[in-house]
Amino acid sequence: MSFVNESNPTDALRAVFRRHASGVSVITMNDNAGAPVGFTATSMTSLGANPPLASFNVASGASSWSAMNTADYVAIHTLGVENIELAKKMAAAHELRFADDDWTRGAHNLPIFSDASAILIAKVREIHSVESNAVVIVEIQEGLIGDEADALIYHQRAYKATGATLE
Amino acid sequence: MSFVNESNPTDALRAVFRRHASGVSVITMNDNAGAPVGFTATSMTSLGANPPLASFNVASGASSWSAMNTADYVAIHTLGVENIELAKKMAAAHELRFADDDWTRGAHNLPIFSDASAILIAKVREIHSVESNAVVIVEIQEGLIGDEADALIYHQRAYKATGATLE
Repeated sequence: MSFVNESNPTDALRAVFRRHASGVSVITMNDNAGAPVGFTATSMTSLGANPPLASFNVASGASSWSAMNTADYVAIHTLGVENIELAKKMAAAHELRFADDDWTRGAHNLPIFSDASAILIAKVREIHSVESNAVVIVEIQEGLIGDEADALIYHQRAYKATGATLE
Repeated sequence: MSFVNESNPTDALRAVFRRHASGVSVITMNDNAGAPVGFTATSMTSLGANPPLASFNVASGASSWSAMNTADYVAIHTLGVENIELAKKMAAAHELRFADDDWTRGAHNLPIFSDASAILIAKVREIHSVESNAVVIVEIQEGLIGDEADALIYHQRAYKATGATLE
């Protein structure tokens, strides 16, 4: 393969992440007043199984940031291909994210979207701010496991299905 | 959807991450003696574009850990479906990872697999240890951008292609 050198580091990051695929999650919590807050995340990943930890990233300019910074618990929803509308809604105008009848209250009064393929209830453990973003580290408390689902992918700025298994 | 409650938190994490898909990267560096070290990662994600940052996770029991803990620079390779053998090799026996002729030396003397779809050269900025894992935060310096490629996915403990675009 022949490469094009991209010496501008921001342009390099953007070009490379267009080639990188991510799974899609929705993370919810409550703000100080108990109102539901949430967002679509493509950064959620495991950070070890013993103890069970996960991490995800949040921009400190995001509408969810002040709630994230004070929340004790979050619900992490893993999305399947049938959840594409939920993924879009939770990445769009924040005042419409909880306007529909598709959520209820679960453990720790957390907002729960019960169409997700699986949900983790987790305690916020550490938040590391780095420039205008933060890495949030949470410890899993319990899970709500739905049926096996074809995972929803974000790639080249589009939502996609998971493709064929490769050998 | 009806959920099964999984009250064991480690089992909950495992069940949920089987439903979660990830993009696949290979991260390389040099150890203290200048020998190449690298591993397959499914945790690599963007942490903002200004300045351009990325993060990934490493287990402190991993064969790459001591090199990771001292490395100043890393090369992050984004993998396409044609790189499945590289993904498998860099997740298998560490003494075989650089045994083939598929790598060269690049910027900062970093090991470079030139079959990857794109490569970021990055400076290690922070390492946050959490239990037996660590979150590594790096700042992008430049990129090597290959042709557009169908991204390689890891899902349900298997490598998969990226599927159809959804509307």
